[in-house]
Amino acid sequence: MGHNIDLTNYKIRTDLAIEAIDNQKIKGIVSKEINEDGIKITEVMVNEEASQIINKKKGHYITIEFSDVTDYENSKKVEKKFSRELSKLINKLNISKEASCLIVGLGNSKSTPDSLGPLVINNVLVTNHLFELGEVTDGYRKVSVLVPGVMGQTGLETSEIIKSIVDKFKPDFLIAIDALASQSIERVNKTIQMTDTGIHPGSGIGNSRKEISYETLNIPCIAIGVPTVVDAITIVSDTINYMHKHYTYSKLNINNPINKLMAYSPNYLKEKITLNKKDKEALLGIVGTLEDNEIKQLLFEVLTPIGFNLMVTPKEVDFLIEKLSLIIGNGINKSLHYNVK
Amino acid sequence: MGHNIDLTNYKIRTDLAIEAIDNQKIKGIVSKEINEDGIKITEVMVNEEASQIINKKKGHYITIEFSDVTDYENSKKVEKKFSRELSKLINKLNISKEASCLIVGLGNSKSTPDSLGPLVINNVLVTNHLFELGEVTDGYRKVSVLVPGVMGQTGLETSEIIKSIVDKFKPDFLIAIDALASQSIERVNKTIQMTDTGIHPGSGIGNSRKEISYETLNIPCIAIGVPTVVDAITIVSDTINYMHKHYTYSKLNINNPINKLMAYSPNYLKEKITLNKKDKEALLGIVGTLEDNEIKQLLFEVLTPIGFNLMVTPKEVDFLIEKLSLIIGNGINKSLHYNVK
Amino acid sequence: MGHNIDLTNYKIRTDLAIEAIDNQKIKGIVSKEINEDGIKITEVMVNEEASQIINKKKGHYITIEFSDVTDYENSKKVEKKFSRELSKLINKLNISKEASCLIVGLGNSKSTPDSLGPLVINNVLVTNHLFELGEVTDGYRKVSVLVPGVMGQTGLETSEIIKSIVDKFKPDFLIAIDALASQSIERVNKTIQMTDTGIHPGSGIGNSRKEISYETLNIPCIAIGVPTVVDAITIVSDTINYMHKHYTYSKLNINNPINKLMAYSPNYLKEKITLNKKDKEALLGIVGTLEDNEIKQLLFEVLTPIGFNLMVTPKEVDFLIEKLSLIIGNGINKSLHYNVK
Amino acid sequence: MGHNIDLTNYKIRTDLAIEAIDNQKIKGIVSKEINEDGIKITEVMVNEEASQIINKKKGHYITIEFSDVTDYENSKKVEKKFSRELSKLINKLNISKEASCLIVGLGNSKSTPDSLGPLVINNVLVTNHLFELGEVTDGYRKVSVLVPGVMGQTGLETSEIIKSIVDKFKPDFLIAIDALASQSIERVNKTIQMTDTGIHPGSGIGNSRKEISYETLNIPCIAIGVPTVVDAITIVSDTINYMHKHYTYSKLNINNPINKLMAYSPNYLKEKITLNKKDKEALLGIVGTLEDNEIKQLLFEVLTPIGFNLMVTPKEVDFLIEKLSLIIGNGINKSLHYNVK
Repeated sequence: MGHNIDLTNYKIRTDLAIEAIDNQKIKGIVSKEINEDGIKITEVMVNEEASQIINKKKGHYITIEFSDVTDYENSKKVEKKFSRELSKLINKLNISKEASCLIVGLGNSKSTPDSLGPLVINNVLVTNHLFELGEVTDGYRKVSVLVPGVMGQTGLETSEIIKSIVDKFKPDFLIAIDALASQSIERVNKTIQMTDTGIHPGSGIGNSRKEISYETLNIPCIAIGVPTVVDAITIVSDTINYMHKHYTYSKLNINNPINKLMAYSPNYLKEKITLNKKDKEALLGIVGTLEDNEIKQLLFEVLTPIGFNLMVTPKEVDFLIEKLSLIIGNGINKSLHYNVK
Repeated sequence: MGHNIDLTNYKIRTDLAIEAIDNQKIKGIVSKEINEDGIKITEVMVNEEASQIINKKKGHYITIEFSDVTDYENSKKVEKKFSRELSKLINKLNISKEASCLIVGLGNSKSTPDSLGPLVINNVLVTNHLFELGEVTDGYRKVSVLVPGVMGQTGLETSEIIKSIVDKFKPDFLIAIDALASQSIERVNKTIQMTDTGIHPGSGIGNSRKEISYETLNIPCIAIGVPTVVDAITIVSDTINYMHKHYTYSKLNINNPINKLMAYSPNYLKEKITLNKKDKEALLGIVGTLEDNEIKQLLFEVLTPIGFNLMVTPKEVDFLIEKLSLIIGNGINKSLHYNVK
Repeated sequence: MGHNIDLTNYKIRTDLAIEAIDNQKIKGIVSKEINEDGIKITEVMVNEEASQIINKKKGHYITIEFSDVTDYENSKKVEKKFSRELSKLINKLNISKEASCLIVGLGNSKSTPDSLGPLVINNVLVTNHLFELGEVTDGYRKVSVLVPGVMGQTGLETSEIIKSIVDKFKPDFLIAIDALASQSIERVNKTIQMTDTGIHPGSGIGNSRKEISYETLNIPCIAIGVPTVVDAITIVSDTINYMHKHYTYSKLNINNPINKLMAYSPNYLKEKITLNKKDKEALLGIVGTLEDNEIKQLLFEVLTPIGFNLMVTPKEVDFLIEKLSLIIGNGINKSLHYNVK
Repeated sequence: MGHNIDLTNYKIRTDLAIEAIDNQKIKGIVSKEINEDGIKITEVMVNEEASQIINKKKGHYITIEFSDVTDYENSKKVEKKFSRELSKLINKLNISKEASCLIVGLGNSKSTPDSLGPLVINNVLVTNHLFELGEVTDGYRKVSVLVPGVMGQTGLETSEIIKSIVDKFKPDFLIAIDALASQSIERVNKTIQMTDTGIHPGSGIGNSRKEISYETLNIPCIAIGVPTVVDAITIVSDTINYMHKHYTYSKLNINNPINKLMAYSPNYLKEKITLNKKDKEALLGIVGTLEDNEIKQLLFEVLTPIGFNLMVTPKEVDFLIEKLSLIIGNGINKSLHYNVK
């Protein structure tokens, strides 16, 4: 073992398409990246061919990466970008301004890192019943909401609850919001992803809930997700890569007098440095000879039998989830109703 | 006006069958009353004929009346009676020990006096999904739960949410829990009613949500309710009757030296006193000449145009609802699973 | 009894100075009333002489009366008036722009109708600790907060918790927020009162907590209160007066063809009608011969021994308290920091 | 760097005395360990001399280590041991059965991983005010509680709030409950520590709040803590040690046919294996040559400048904290009142 790693056991647990793509350079993927106001927006279009390679469905994947949302000004900027990108995605799906929408808040409202979906629902404008009362002015569409809970709470398969509601009330399209697992430390609570491919549990955190998609529901399904948890394997494997980069950076700069004068260490991640295998091996021995996937497999074998491959969330999770649910709720309102500004 | 009251406007707003019956002595109703441990249990069977007179569906109505549930000992007694009566009702419906149950917590979890249903769900044992995993021992049945929210939150008709879930998951029977309006001060937060007739919004608080019953869902529907709110009309009209009784009692006892020595007034409601119309007229003038329904109609005409026919709840509502949801949740668990004691 | 009422038992339970004044026309009171944007602001100055008559401390009493705060536009108007009046009160006390403030949220966070104080604290800007870190720009003053709980939760006398904190941290002045009992249906959740006399439990809801005032703490103490509960006596005695007015109004208008054509009854409270004792006696018999205080005393004797003088709150209390805590929190922030707009 | 680590920057962030001791074998420490029902209880007595070496105050440190508290049976066992150990500690301090106690719930009730203290307070029996009313039977002592909040909420130094309350109300002793940072993955939410030395922020998570101890308050101060968060440095450095052990174990067992037949990997941590430096170097290169403290320092230098030394908590934190607060609350009740069983 160690020299002899079996890669079949460890599946990369990520719900974020951009992370799947980070790991592999693939044909059949068109990707655009823009940076505005310190916010990075990546749009990825996956075609049929690429779909099979990266095990992600054909469709659009938009990722918005940002820093601190507890800062009010920054949160307003993120909200604006998010709403703009969501509007674009809705337009691409040829959804009309009158089309009715069911918004589904997935997850467990009693578990903070899993409560994003239900919390977004609290911030969403519900109008469907007002239309029947004739109380709605122009500029609004019909919106209803559903918080289906999780199977451990309800005893019922979540995807089937959704299907029964969709079949009964016949909304024209669906938006589902969920908390996700991240495959990288740096994206936790700092990324919003959206896609028109719906939700496909197999590629994500490993729950057995079934697909929420056009294929199962016969209406367009937009999924919005934020990675709120990360596992110990990812923390350690990311750190191993940072150690490699930090080591190389330090070797290059050890005699740079500027570094010696700095009170705080520089953010070496921002530097363009050519990494080589030799440094990694010197620093990390056998571990340094392994590919990323092999390191993850090794960590899986080390941590799982002793029960320490924890799924964790930053200790500030309550405040972050609250801000993120406000950003997403407000952004959805603006995208769905052209009279909300 | 006053002498000339139009009784067509004011509908008595009560969800409690026992209250409908109190007001009118009716044929076709069989009624049993027992008192145990300071708890009064009334069982009423309404047949087809009586059903039309009291505007309550044919079926069993069981009412459990009690005093302070913030007392632990007393709450345990109420839980025991409640569970026993629920078990009897389930048996009368010929529901088998293996029959699967969907428990529906009606009401708005964000409004304390309306949150009884959702809170009961928190205290209920959910087992349905465990059966599929083979994790359940003998003595348990399949139980799933639903908290459908209210239309103002979801935009969707609550009864139709329930119907779509019942149609999809096909439970063998349903238990719905809801907070009710009371037609008497003394029953608020001090009564649990259950019935095998389901929920019929027309007779209750006046929301337009539709029926939840065997007729609409094709499975037995047991409704469990607690009156948690009362309107100002009821508070005033009840008080007018208490004033009448108190006046007659005082006249009879004014020279009784025992009364003069008492530090606190006696509970005159417990006394058997013959009331007469003349006392009521002397005490209350024209108002004293009116029948109960006429007084309520008058109060409706007085309070409604000025916006003061408030629906109110006792200020201790948070603590009472919490205790009641524990009693009902525990009681349901014991009635549904013979392995829960 | 009835003819022979002992007025010594029933104390009018009100924390609202304006209500004490409504009941009695008193010398030594200067009163101003303005109406703006549908909001009525009453300022009452009580001097030493009047103080003894109405059993309210010498000082300023400002009352802001409004209608629906669940309407966003209206809530913003109320916030603006409230903040302006609070600023004026602070100025009258000669409190400087640099003076440090301790804001105390009284009441029980676990009881909705009593949670106003703790909820306001959630909406208040806390700056005291930031001054020590040098992180505060101009336009802010030092603000700290305290949520002392209630004696039933802490086991400690609330006024002494406050005194110990004031003695230790030495704020320059104090603002205390509390939920109050109302002496009139129409003010419940529709009035904000503030005063520079502090909090004097004896005149209010009857809890034995001690005074929070300049006399006990040696710093100016502003009290802000909202009546959130009302007792059954008040509901009934108010309704008796409405019945009287409604009866007189109806007699005058019974043949007015306009009334017969109206789908809804008019708001007769808005009409100027001369009331006379004779109508009240005809309508209400012996009860109609009693003064307001005597009617309340009678209701006390009727309802108390049977346990039905409930303190109640409107069933929408959760939503109203939330809005009111936002209005008061935002208003305080604007009054305390001239850089908050 | 790497070869040339400056150990002055990184302070080991632990509030757990047992962890400080794990790292160093010290004279002047008497230690006892028992294992009962799968629960490990370690009692450490630190004398003056050892105190200075491990930077922990002289006194008793008791640590209770357990596994899953979401299992009801196991949680009851932990509660029993915890209460027994707390009673022993109270006895050692010569605190009488009549001595009054102030229980302080430290931390931020709005941040789940930091809410242990406030949540315990909800489960604690408060009796102080009942003594004044003469409502207490034998077998209870005077208990009052305080939830002082955190400086970011109140603007006030928490230790000074406590001091002002202690000075005013003069309890005979104090129990403070707080959530802690752990220095090891395996203790997070699986350890309760208690000590008679009070709380000394300098040795723990690094907040600047001041000491809560006999020295500052003049009454015995018992601190009860649970590690609920851990930093990324600890996760990585623990994993590096597990990798070393796993590597050695694998080398020894690679040809063991039993291992090849096992569906799941064995818990190699339970095996007695002799570790050697050479394995660590082969596996981990330069990193493998470093001492534990040096590795932590390196990780600090790698993770801090890029902002990824996250403090994290397991994603199940809500459920774990709830169970732990029940265990500690119930345990305290049993230890403080001999009539609570």
